[in-house]
Amino acid sequence: MTNDFKITIHMVSSLDGMIAKKDNSISWFETSDHYENGIELTEEQTKEFLKTIDCYIMGSATYEHALELSKSYGWAYGEVPTIVLSHRKLPVDKKNIEIYSGDLYKLVREQLRPRFKNVWLVGGPTIVKEFIRLKLVDEIRLSILPIILGDGLPFFNQIEQEHLLHLKETRTYKSGMVELCYEIKK
Amino acid sequence: MTNDFKITIHMVSSLDGMIAKKDNSISWFETSDHYENGIELTEEQTKEFLKTIDCYIMGSATYEHALELSKSYGWAYGEVPTIVLSHRKLPVDKKNIEIYSGDLYKLVREQLRPRFKNVWLVGGPTIVKEFIRLKLVDEIRLSILPIILGDGLPFFNQIEQEHLLHLKETRTYKSGMVELCYEIKK
Repeated sequence: MTNDFKITIHMVSSLDGMIAKKDNSISWFETSDHYENGIELTEEQTKEFLKTIDCYIMGSATYEHALELSKSYGWAYGEVPTIVLSHRKLPVDKKNIEIYSGDLYKLVREQLRPRFKNVWLVGGPTIVKEFIRLKLVDEIRLSILPIILGDGLPFFNQIEQEHLLHLKETRTYKSGMVELCYEIKK
Repeated sequence: MTNDFKITIHMVSSLDGMIAKKDNSISWFETSDHYENGIELTEEQTKEFLKTIDCYIMGSATYEHALELSKSYGWAYGEVPTIVLSHRKLPVDKKNIEIYSGDLYKLVREQLRPRFKNVWLVGGPTIVKEFIRLKLVDEIRLSILPIILGDGLPFFNQIEQEHLLHLKETRTYKSGMVELCYEIKK
């Protein structure tokens, strides 16, 4: 039964591995590239795919950034249960958002495994690093956009551990985005 | 005529963007992964491809590392003209190797363009950064191996400039390596 449970790290980065600009602006996500042989998902397909995710996990900075963006674009994670890892008291204005501070093994064992199947960890680098180091991650899904940002927040904080990966899937989109999906070997 | 001339950056990196381990060991290049839907080049195809490269450029640390490796595996760049960028006096024991120190625009204009068509810049990060910042690079070809190294030498030193890219090609190999080829928009 527990074999159905999976934690996936998902991030969108520039070719030079940045996931955010220093000023936190997000217009770089809209690339102007066109890759003829790429695929394109319909809104319907994207919706169907997103439906398979039944929990999001994020760090406090990612949460605060998402809150900020929600003022202009709405809350990006919909009604899906979302767990924010933080020791701070953060504003919460939705029933599906919980703040958690404590042992991550315990979080996974007692809160995630019994309730969810397809958990997505959406950043930032500190949380990504902790989860990888504790070997709590099953998959990494990295979407690389056709841009060099030059500076900003790097996706991979030095993990300080070696991990072998298994390439599961690659997808190339008409927008020039390349999606790489890896399993972390255990 | 000069439109035929191209400078390509080529690097092999881990998923976390490292191109070398701290101890400089290279066994991680031999991945144990297997990606069923990937392609595989024959030795013949690889040879044919390498023949199209008519000049290599590298920094002094990359050169010294290649020299070190040549003791065990032979000189990796064959008889192809190779220019090492360095202010230091470095040992040179092959006729096809030159040391250059000076203006990079001048190098490209006076030495590379008149003599070569397909120049490959093979590292390291300092040289990569300088060439990108001076807008002397036409293409970036990044081969990502299925591994997280955790620390080491990062491919992209903070470039401190934004560059839009155009995705030209992606290839996925049976070994789990993914090759991404981008044009730097000018």
